[in-house]
Amino acid sequence: MRTVRFRDPAGNVRRGEWSGTPGDEITVRAQYGGRVALGNETFQPEAVDVLPPCDPSKIVCVGLNYEDHAAEQNKPIPDRPSYFLKPPSAVASHGDTITLPAGKEQIDYEAEFAVVISDTCRNVCGKDAMDVIAGYTCLNDISNRDDQSIEQNWVRGKAFDGSAPIGPVISRRENVPNDASIQLRVNGECKQDSSIDKLLIPISDLIEELTSFMTLQSGDIISTGTPAGVGPLSDGDEVEVEIEGIGTLSHSVRIP
Amino acid sequence: MRTVRFRDPAGNVRRGEWSGTPGDEITVRAQYGGRVALGNETFQPEAVDVLPPCDPSKIVCVGLNYEDHAAEQNKPIPDRPSYFLKPPSAVASHGDTITLPAGKEQIDYEAEFAVVISDTCRNVCGKDAMDVIAGYTCLNDISNRDDQSIEQNWVRGKAFDGSAPIGPVISRRENVPNDASIQLRVNGECKQDSSIDKLLIPISDLIEELTSFMTLQSGDIISTGTPAGVGPLSDGDEVEVEIEGIGTLSHSVRIP
Repeated sequence: MRTVRFRDPAGNVRRGEWSGTPGDEITVRAQYGGRVALGNETFQPEAVDVLPPCDPSKIVCVGLNYEDHAAEQNKPIPDRPSYFLKPPSAVASHGDTITLPAGKEQIDYEAEFAVVISDTCRNVCGKDAMDVIAGYTCLNDISNRDDQSIEQNWVRGKAFDGSAPIGPVISRRENVPNDASIQLRVNGECKQDSSIDKLLIPISDLIEELTSFMTLQSGDIISTGTPAGVGPLSDGDEVEVEIEGIGTLSHSVRIP
Repeated sequence: MRTVRFRDPAGNVRRGEWSGTPGDEITVRAQYGGRVALGNETFQPEAVDVLPPCDPSKIVCVGLNYEDHAAEQNKPIPDRPSYFLKPPSAVASHGDTITLPAGKEQIDYEAEFAVVISDTCRNVCGKDAMDVIAGYTCLNDISNRDDQSIEQNWVRGKAFDGSAPIGPVISRRENVPNDASIQLRVNGECKQDSSIDKLLIPISDLIEELTSFMTLQSGDIISTGTPAGVGPLSDGDEVEVEIEGIGTLSHSVRIP
């Protein structure tokens, strides 16, 4: 199952099933209540307002978790996860036009495979970690390098409004192969192309270590890092993050 | 007005007025609805469960914002605000016993004057900044130096569960003088003693710069930095942060 959250043309927030693929319909399954069975409803994704698939109270991002990205950044591979935070105000949706900070030399895209947490959890053992995962989504860790490069904590650099587009769906674990491909395209041109089996620190280890000091809530996101190929965004760019078994997160950017 | 949020002995979450001073009563004012006027109710603060006075979606902390603290840390004064983030899961309450991370050499207290935001806001001019302030509270920016000193972003260092006790009340602006004293005591012994007129970057500048790239929500907190005198906590310590015009935030710590 891949679950999309959206506002229908009447203005109601709904949940439906969607492949996350442009052209495919969103299906809201029949609701059975009492004696009344309503039929399935379908929507064209272009005709609705796709919303973030969850409401994270925090996004914990992992830096330098692919060897080829650490190499292109001229950074050593950390000996333990290197975390940073994005707040709820950073979240943007599939289909959004994101206004980026003005007057910056370089703001980069970074395609990431993101884990959505199902339940409040703390002190989760690695062997139980899969039990606290609601599913997976795509995230673009948009990074303002001008400020990131000169601040201790990456707040101006990575926590600005719109710096975390997520979606388009939450895809259950069984849909996503262990070696799922992850790709980012700008205006149709492939810029990042890797697979999630190249993650240096596995998800179960991230959940175990993170929950040793921090409670995760339902809807919280762990974003697992980006592979090689990151690069700058320009005004008007159309960005797609596609992960096998999840779908394609699309958004555009505007630079004032 | 100073507003406390608490759970009464019957288990109901209430708001009342309180001086934030041990020994003083909490008053829930008469409610007028329809033709029925209920009388004031009073509670002993020791008899209720004091809750965090707001539910921040994020806490934005400011580093090195008092000259004497920058000096004691051997750090230069930054030429613009140095931010870091604490997530909602870091929040603790007045009266809590906070379990700190185990096995660390040094976990420090840091008394801070904290600004509570009243309304969703973005791109606030400095001259309008006071209009988005609901009031002020006390915050202890508890800091795990072992990890802070070796990580880029201070997530293990400053974003762990319980690293942000806040309270005991939200005090309106008019109660807090511009040179309000700020004091931190450990087991009754004064460790930090300063005043908020020594803040290097004023609150209005912080709000203007922060909202130039980040939306603040009602209940969000900007914590304005700590003065000199920070130092380590030990198992069983009783901590008090007292700010003139707000009251005293008290909590204890446990180190497993």
